[in-house]
Amino acid sequence: MTGTLYGLGIGPGDPDLITLKALKLLQAAPVLAYPALEDGDSLARAIIAPHLDAPKTEIAIRIPMTVERAPAQAVYDTAAAEIGTHLKAGQDVVVLCEGDPFFYGSFMYLFGRIAEDYPVEVVPGVSSLTACATALQSPLSARNDILTVLPAPLPSDVLAARLQETDSAAIMKVGRHFARVRKVISDLGLMDKARYIERATMEAEKILPLDEVPEDAAPYFSMILIHKRGQAWK
Amino acid sequence: MTGTLYGLGIGPGDPDLITLKALKLLQAAPVLAYPALEDGDSLARAIIAPHLDAPKTEIAIRIPMTVERAPAQAVYDTAAAEIGTHLKAGQDVVVLCEGDPFFYGSFMYLFGRIAEDYPVEVVPGVSSLTACATALQSPLSARNDILTVLPAPLPSDVLAARLQETDSAAIMKVGRHFARVRKVISDLGLMDKARYIERATMEAEKILPLDEVPEDAAPYFSMILIHKRGQAWK
Repeated sequence: MTGTLYGLGIGPGDPDLITLKALKLLQAAPVLAYPALEDGDSLARAIIAPHLDAPKTEIAIRIPMTVERAPAQAVYDTAAAEIGTHLKAGQDVVVLCEGDPFFYGSFMYLFGRIAEDYPVEVVPGVSSLTACATALQSPLSARNDILTVLPAPLPSDVLAARLQETDSAAIMKVGRHFARVRKVISDLGLMDKARYIERATMEAEKILPLDEVPEDAAPYFSMILIHKRGQAWK
Repeated sequence: MTGTLYGLGIGPGDPDLITLKALKLLQAAPVLAYPALEDGDSLARAIIAPHLDAPKTEIAIRIPMTVERAPAQAVYDTAAAEIGTHLKAGQDVVVLCEGDPFFYGSFMYLFGRIAEDYPVEVVPGVSSLTACATALQSPLSARNDILTVLPAPLPSDVLAARLQETDSAAIMKVGRHFARVRKVISDLGLMDKARYIERATMEAEKILPLDEVPEDAAPYFSMILIHKRGQAWK
């Protein structure tokens, strides 16, 4: 009997935004894996820390923040092998995933390495997309709205073209691209339809008008939501 | 002291995909409101039924399924007034929302009617978007992918244009539009990149290859996911 790998969506940051299903699997599994910074800090582990009720074997997957992909690929290879050892021995392994595992999540790199050899179950979670809309008290989309999710690192002309052809948009991973993205939004005349938020549902959550965000201060976990009608329900 | 209106995302269908936060608010509130069909059946109430541990005052919001918007508007006006009576009397009211309240949800119509007069808190939930991806074992999007959410009732030329300009797409509310949408996908040569699912995470969940779905059998709660790389992580 091999173990099962569970990819658990743990939600956007508030520990109470985990689902009952993820909580039960988390508490039952003997082995816990999670992404971590190279110095060891793990946001994912911090989110679920209040729910840990017994010691587990822990695997910190320390992802190097390099532009090249090869170093991260090597880390995923090593982590998949280590996780595979536990699965082969019949132990279930849960992998923590901030937000939802399959919505711009790094879990898919483990999934791609393990799903052919072992049973994998993925538990969806509350994504940053809807958590940000909630925190901004601003519905994402209604009726027949087109909603477009755009990663901020995309070139400005691509962002501008896609923003012109949608009703609603979420620009993710704003971070160091903030000033450039704001200019795209301003050039399109959409400043008064856009809202900025960072670290939604966490204690450090911050909401600011777009023109009051300092140029170099947006963290990676920041998002801009735009709805062309201003309010989706109108 | 007035009461607070809570818009609770209760997730896509599996009762265990409710969040701890929504569960606590649900069990604490004296008044429970939810959308229902005109004959009284309520999918939202059925989803949370296993979690109800005490009787509450219940308000079924019976939404008429008409093409014209006026009859539904009148129902929301009446429901907002009834909810307002409880809030004014100091009672908290929870409104159940399938999936996430602000992701194509009808909660925004109550929100628009009540938020100016009473405190409203929205609790995000697991949306059908990520629940479908999970059930299909198919990541939605990765890295700098553009993800476009398209309601199936949109005209075919709009669907085709938007599908051409995205990496990943979710076509929602497929229902009676299935045959037309499948033709759009086929004409774009994307049949082998598309996956069909209905009633994700519910007991009646069904996954079929696109060419095996009967023309007139897709329910309203059905979705097609497309990723142009086939697998997001590649």
